[in-house]
Amino acid sequence: MQKKSTYVVAVVGATGAVGREMVSILEERKFPVSELVLLASDRSEGERIEFRGKNIPVRKLTKDSFAGVDIALFTAGSERSLKFAPVAVAAGSVVIDNSSAFRMDPKVPLVIPEVNAADLEGHAGIIANPNCSTIGLLMALKPLHDAAKIRRVVVTTFQSVSGTGKEAIDELAGQTVALLNFKDIEKKVYPHQIAFNCIPQIDGFLEDGATREEMKIAGETKKILGDDSFKVTATCVRVPVFRCHAEAVNIETERKLGANDARAALAGAPGVIVYDDPSRSLYPLQLDTAGKDDVYVGRIREDATVPNGLNLWIVSDNLRKGAALNAVQIAEHLTR
Amino acid sequence: MQKKSTYVVAVVGATGAVGREMVSILEERKFPVSELVLLASDRSEGERIEFRGKNIPVRKLTKDSFAGVDIALFTAGSERSLKFAPVAVAAGSVVIDNSSAFRMDPKVPLVIPEVNAADLEGHAGIIANPNCSTIGLLMALKPLHDAAKIRRVVVTTFQSVSGTGKEAIDELAGQTVALLNFKDIEKKVYPHQIAFNCIPQIDGFLEDGATREEMKIAGETKKILGDDSFKVTATCVRVPVFRCHAEAVNIETERKLGANDARAALAGAPGVIVYDDPSRSLYPLQLDTAGKDDVYVGRIREDATVPNGLNLWIVSDNLRKGAALNAVQIAEHLTR
Repeated sequence: MQKKSTYVVAVVGATGAVGREMVSILEERKFPVSELVLLASDRSEGERIEFRGKNIPVRKLTKDSFAGVDIALFTAGSERSLKFAPVAVAAGSVVIDNSSAFRMDPKVPLVIPEVNAADLEGHAGIIANPNCSTIGLLMALKPLHDAAKIRRVVVTTFQSVSGTGKEAIDELAGQTVALLNFKDIEKKVYPHQIAFNCIPQIDGFLEDGATREEMKIAGETKKILGDDSFKVTATCVRVPVFRCHAEAVNIETERKLGANDARAALAGAPGVIVYDDPSRSLYPLQLDTAGKDDVYVGRIREDATVPNGLNLWIVSDNLRKGAALNAVQIAEHLTR
Repeated sequence: MQKKSTYVVAVVGATGAVGREMVSILEERKFPVSELVLLASDRSEGERIEFRGKNIPVRKLTKDSFAGVDIALFTAGSERSLKFAPVAVAAGSVVIDNSSAFRMDPKVPLVIPEVNAADLEGHAGIIANPNCSTIGLLMALKPLHDAAKIRRVVVTTFQSVSGTGKEAIDELAGQTVALLNFKDIEKKVYPHQIAFNCIPQIDGFLEDGATREEMKIAGETKKILGDDSFKVTATCVRVPVFRCHAEAVNIETERKLGANDARAALAGAPGVIVYDDPSRSLYPLQLDTAGKDDVYVGRIREDATVPNGLNLWIVSDNLRKGAALNAVQIAEHLTR
């Protein structure tokens, strides 16, 4: 991408939960935006979103939307990415795509800047943002992998409804209100009631009984670390929480890494905060992590059931580091 | 215990969440009760609980409460069990204790009837009921252990607030209502807000960074299976759900056990139901399991990151099979 002093930036899917977060983050981080182009489907046309004190109108996404756009941040689902990302690239934009459409494409870098920024070199117009659970997990695992080489990971996720989108936030709130008023609940987004319930399914199922989400975490991790032998098995669960994803993680390392060594390795890692004081009941919580940029790690303790085992608890804001922030950080790297 | 045609049964802690469930289950299962003695602290004295169409008054627990009592079901916390269980035994009662007070005592059998009923032989007056998460876990693991010998278990729990008791049920409901009305929440039971949040702490912390709950699951499992080499590492998490505990479990077995073999082994086990049809989004849910006696297992799939790995998702009603039902089943065995 040609370096400039300011850039025309488009947000595709601007009215969604992640899209709105992207607009805020571009402003907060003073990204050098000369013009912000907000794009969405017909339904949202005419809405306005505030950016630097101005109400920017949302325009309808069409094939002609990308003329003059330098950087297009896509967060409107895989189908729209597959259709419009190539159009944007043809118009000269660099696309940073938050959907899963291109993540496993060998020509497309899949990047967490703190982990594998070097993979941005030689991109062909599209860069993929990893899955929100993958980002939180790898932010914490990379420093431990560098310190002691991780051999195997067993991860169980506690994912908030905002990972599904705005309609899911409304569904959790609406069902909760209905139940507290002894009324029938409505189910539109999830196959089962999410209020006061946990659903062990995120995305569709594959032949082998895993969900796509579970497969994504395993596959994306291998690609980002550039290590096909890296072993991850995941169980992904939706919990009745509005924002932030938590992950209970068990790892086995090649070399011994005590709990204190792990804390030291994590404390030195960019974008990671160790928050781990059991004596005062302090550990990361989804509630406290909403709106935070860093990935929080606690409950760090040795697991004696394998020679070099560790357990940890990771929490990150799925809309920020898990999506919008990571995308803007990629854009920052491209403009440096 | 002397076999009789009917028994005087006491429930100690009768007004709590588990105590009330014990009374219902004694009635439902037509346990041969000649007289039901309901005991609780001063606070609950005078309350009445229905049993076989009669309202039985709750009496204050004292050292004289056990005269003539054949079977005393204790569920009033460890402190009261430590104080009053020996008194009951001295008065000639057999105590079935739902607290953790005596579970690891080598003289006290720790029993899940479907798993190790034989351990009831030669008890010395007190029999311990395992932890609610241990019971759900072992009901599902025992058939797999018999089929292929389990070497290691990594378990992450999603535990409902009813595991803490009635005050915790009120706390989740109260905090939820307060938040939906934009009011401040009250915290009495948990160290952090539980409404729309997950708390990775159940019970207090030990020196090694694990919680007592996590230690209990590992220790009780070894005792119940009579195998000190059985390896379990646990992460226990409280979730904003009223009833039933879910557990995401990863196991490694000595011999290969495919997903279908595992389903077959589980389907033949007493008290276990395989509920596993991903193509129709069917898997056990906490919501559906409330009030059920069986332990439900789904999401059964092979884990290729180890030679003989399996993932499963277990849900059981923590108040019934996880506590009250298991205790009554022990009583049934003693009277057979």
